[in-house]
Amino acid sequence: MREAYHDQLGQLADRLADMCAMAGDAMERATASLLQADLAVAEQVIGDDAKIDDVRSSIEEQAYALLALQAPVATDLRIVLAVIHAAESVERMGDLALHVAKAARRRHPNHVLADTVEPYFAEMGRIAVQLAREATEVIRTQDVERARSMEDADDAMDDLHRHLFTVIMDKEWPHGVPSAVDTTLLGRFYERFADHAVSVAKRTVFVVTGRMPGYGGDIDD
Amino acid sequence: MREAYHDQLGQLADRLADMCAMAGDAMERATASLLQADLAVAEQVIGDDAKIDDVRSSIEEQAYALLALQAPVATDLRIVLAVIHAAESVERMGDLALHVAKAARRRHPNHVLADTVEPYFAEMGRIAVQLAREATEVIRTQDVERARSMEDADDAMDDLHRHLFTVIMDKEWPHGVPSAVDTTLLGRFYERFADHAVSVAKRTVFVVTGRMPGYGGDIDD
Repeated sequence: MREAYHDQLGQLADRLADMCAMAGDAMERATASLLQADLAVAEQVIGDDAKIDDVRSSIEEQAYALLALQAPVATDLRIVLAVIHAAESVERMGDLALHVAKAARRRHPNHVLADTVEPYFAEMGRIAVQLAREATEVIRTQDVERARSMEDADDAMDDLHRHLFTVIMDKEWPHGVPSAVDTTLLGRFYERFADHAVSVAKRTVFVVTGRMPGYGGDIDD
Repeated sequence: MREAYHDQLGQLADRLADMCAMAGDAMERATASLLQADLAVAEQVIGDDAKIDDVRSSIEEQAYALLALQAPVATDLRIVLAVIHAAESVERMGDLALHVAKAARRRHPNHVLADTVEPYFAEMGRIAVQLAREATEVIRTQDVERARSMEDADDAMDDLHRHLFTVIMDKEWPHGVPSAVDTTLLGRFYERFADHAVSVAKRTVFVVTGRMPGYGGDIDD
């Protein structure tokens, strides 16, 4: 009985890791659709989002069943609760990739972004995908050091995001208000995606250490 | 023993309701600071945000202790999990009010918003605060109908938000790119605040009915 129960806990973490990998793939494709104005890829991301939502619902159901039937305590309880929280964050990562893909679709066949800011988004996309993959590995390995090291990539994201704002706010911005508005929202989507990936990893650290590192500062809406 | 335990559950819901009221007050003051360029009020919101975060931590700890010590099942389990989720949403509502207050502080003594869009924000602020207060009452009363009726106010918020975009995107927007960027982000903060308030109320409905109404469509990052 207890054996089967620990198998179920392990399965839950595996499915969360798979879900996080799906969100990373979604953001990778969404970024490609954004930078290449590729409608087919954008449609693929948009169509696939429901799969991520389904995995989340199923993880949550499985977690609730575990809590109700097994009444885990101590570390096991913390694992189940961390999975429930993390699944919510990963679903939002998928939704943010969806927003990026929808922006690409909305402006197709035009590019959403001005040439001058596309390199920022190529780099923010790269970091976002990297963070999703790191979070996936942290879920699989519960590697506390790896989780901590994600903060550097998150700092790099924040720097890019801040710098992007100075570019948009510059008096010489020649691309007009609609382009500035799109760029502002897209920048925020990438920054939020990174925050959620870090939050997922931190939740895992919480399970291992019993202490939530600096929670409350990073996730802000 | 069971009596004390149900008292604890009731306390947990009461503290969540108090927290939700705090987030509503924060957004009310943040909106005042935004519309009146009132630095003192903005500073008050900024200084008070830590109190909301503290209540959230304390609610989460209390909920975890209940799960670990009492191993609730069925409805009781669902209440505790709903409280944990809802406390996270309410903390984010507080953070969004914080963002509004920080925008007011950043541009002080100037107004952040152009005259032409201030009325939109007066109305979005009113709806946001109303939704936070409705959510507070739904937590206290578990009134399913009241939770459902919040969707109308949320739809009104979405309409305002969409219309705001058409105003910003208009070729005749005379206020420049920085103002458009600020207005875009602020609009998103109000819309997200409303989504979180509705999500808190929906979680409460979930506790009462055992079914989560249309979850996944409203909260998108």
